[in-house]
Amino acid sequence: MSDIIDQRWALSLHGGAGPVAGRDYSATEKDLSELAAAGRERLKAGQSSLDVVEFAVSAMETSGLYVAGRGSAPNSAGYVELDASIMSGPTRGAGAVAALRDVVSPVAVARAVMEKTPHVLLAGTGALAFASRSGFELVEDPASWYKLPVGVMREELATGAHGTVGAVALDVTGALAAATSTGGTFGKLEGRVGDTPLVGAGTWADDDVAISCTGVGERIIRAGGAVSIAMRCRAGMRLEAAVGELLDEIARLGGDAGVIAVTRSGEIVMRYNSDGMKRVSVSATTDIDVATFA
Amino acid sequence: MSDIIDQRWALSLHGGAGPVAGRDYSATEKDLSELAAAGRERLKAGQSSLDVVEFAVSAMETSGLYVAGRGSAPNSAGYVELDASIMSGPTRGAGAVAALRDVVSPVAVARAVMEKTPHVLLAGTGALAFASRSGFELVEDPASWYKLPVGVMREELATGAHGTVGAVALDVTGALAAATSTGGTFGKLEGRVGDTPLVGAGTWADDDVAISCTGVGERIIRAGGAVSIAMRCRAGMRLEAAVGELLDEIARLGGDAGVIAVTRSGEIVMRYNSDGMKRVSVSATTDIDVATFA
Repeated sequence: MSDIIDQRWALSLHGGAGPVAGRDYSATEKDLSELAAAGRERLKAGQSSLDVVEFAVSAMETSGLYVAGRGSAPNSAGYVELDASIMSGPTRGAGAVAALRDVVSPVAVARAVMEKTPHVLLAGTGALAFASRSGFELVEDPASWYKLPVGVMREELATGAHGTVGAVALDVTGALAAATSTGGTFGKLEGRVGDTPLVGAGTWADDDVAISCTGVGERIIRAGGAVSIAMRCRAGMRLEAAVGELLDEIARLGGDAGVIAVTRSGEIVMRYNSDGMKRVSVSATTDIDVATFA
Repeated sequence: MSDIIDQRWALSLHGGAGPVAGRDYSATEKDLSELAAAGRERLKAGQSSLDVVEFAVSAMETSGLYVAGRGSAPNSAGYVELDASIMSGPTRGAGAVAALRDVVSPVAVARAVMEKTPHVLLAGTGALAFASRSGFELVEDPASWYKLPVGVMREELATGAHGTVGAVALDVTGALAAATSTGGTFGKLEGRVGDTPLVGAGTWADDDVAISCTGVGERIIRAGGAVSIAMRCRAGMRLEAAVGELLDEIARLGGDAGVIAVTRSGEIVMRYNSDGMKRVSVSATTDIDVATFA
């Protein structure tokens, strides 16, 4: 490929910052490792970071293993509403969907919003109408499609427990991208939208850094979100410190959260102030590294 | 009042960054001046900045003079969808509604989301259900309630022309607040959500600065939004320069926009890279200053 300017590449995925201490996350860790291996092959083969983050998030949405897509829990009105966003660093193109019902892959619809409309975010019935007329696969039988994510207990449904999936990647052309998807917090009000589909809050990508957040979305938004990390980096702060400052601000507002981020030099940061964060990383210079807790 | 720590106060309002050169905006300028005078009396009497920005934005929503609330234009499906947000600097409390149908004052519902739910943003049918059960006044007859904003011509309905209203204020206790409301761009897709209801994009308030944006929302989001101004200020940049950098970034992405902002010292900045911005300012040390163009 003539547009390859750098052989570095890097990929990080998260499966949410809400794991419960002592629970067995071996199934999700196995899934994350397999997705990282598949993403590695795609990036090594020259696939764009935008394609790879969409691939990984879409796979996590349909697996049922995470609180996103198939693994989402119903809102207070008894039905599932889905949020997702995707952003391309080089173009700053971005697409997102919020409070969207019954599509199989919300992140794929978000990408179509980016590429086929003049808009960034579509919500509610308008988002569903767009997904439907664009030919995206819809959930035909919600009762059999959705399943609570593996390992989630009944009592968590009313506790505000949360989960999200996300991906950040650097491809061999040096392009960064990020994507995030969620079914939101358990017991959320009908219509509730967190940070995930808000470009700048749950997801960000520019020429220097790609970021995906997970955690208590309301606190992430009020703390400044993903773009506040990018702005700290632009002011000269190292990525690790910039992520740490946002997490500290989220903690001050009473929330917990996690962040994955990758820079244009291929540096990966995965940090959280929750009990843990389901996560994996792999790059041109590092092997697959999967973990849930410290 | 025992909690008065400073007698400075300041208020700025905008009525959108989309005026058309040569058109007569005397009616909106008169309205903005009257609102600034009313806001001045409220701030001098010790009312909170949060109450004053809600008062001003709510008045602009119901006036029909702006592309917000009553003055909104229908989406591509033929009905009006409303977006609004509000944020309190001292608490970082924030509330917002998106793609909300037929409430008289969207910003009032946004404030209730902030104060009466654990959430920041409600969208679509869930937002309407919340507004309805919270007792907010609904539009009974949309056909007679909504009117195209004064002076808007038919052909603009399909051009993506836009308008928004916003307010930023500093009260005598030193507390900052911001609020923004819009009917979105003309001809927008059903479900389209711009920067206005995204806390951090269209609206931001913290201990140091309160900001409200107007313009092509998609570009404002992709450029980093209001919180990117706040982060530049936190890194030591003057407010005027920080606003200018965001506007430059929006222009690079192909959009035009305007920003009003006020700092905790009472400095007001009103800047735009569009043809003009309907705007007014008043403070403890300055008289009412209203303008549409340069």
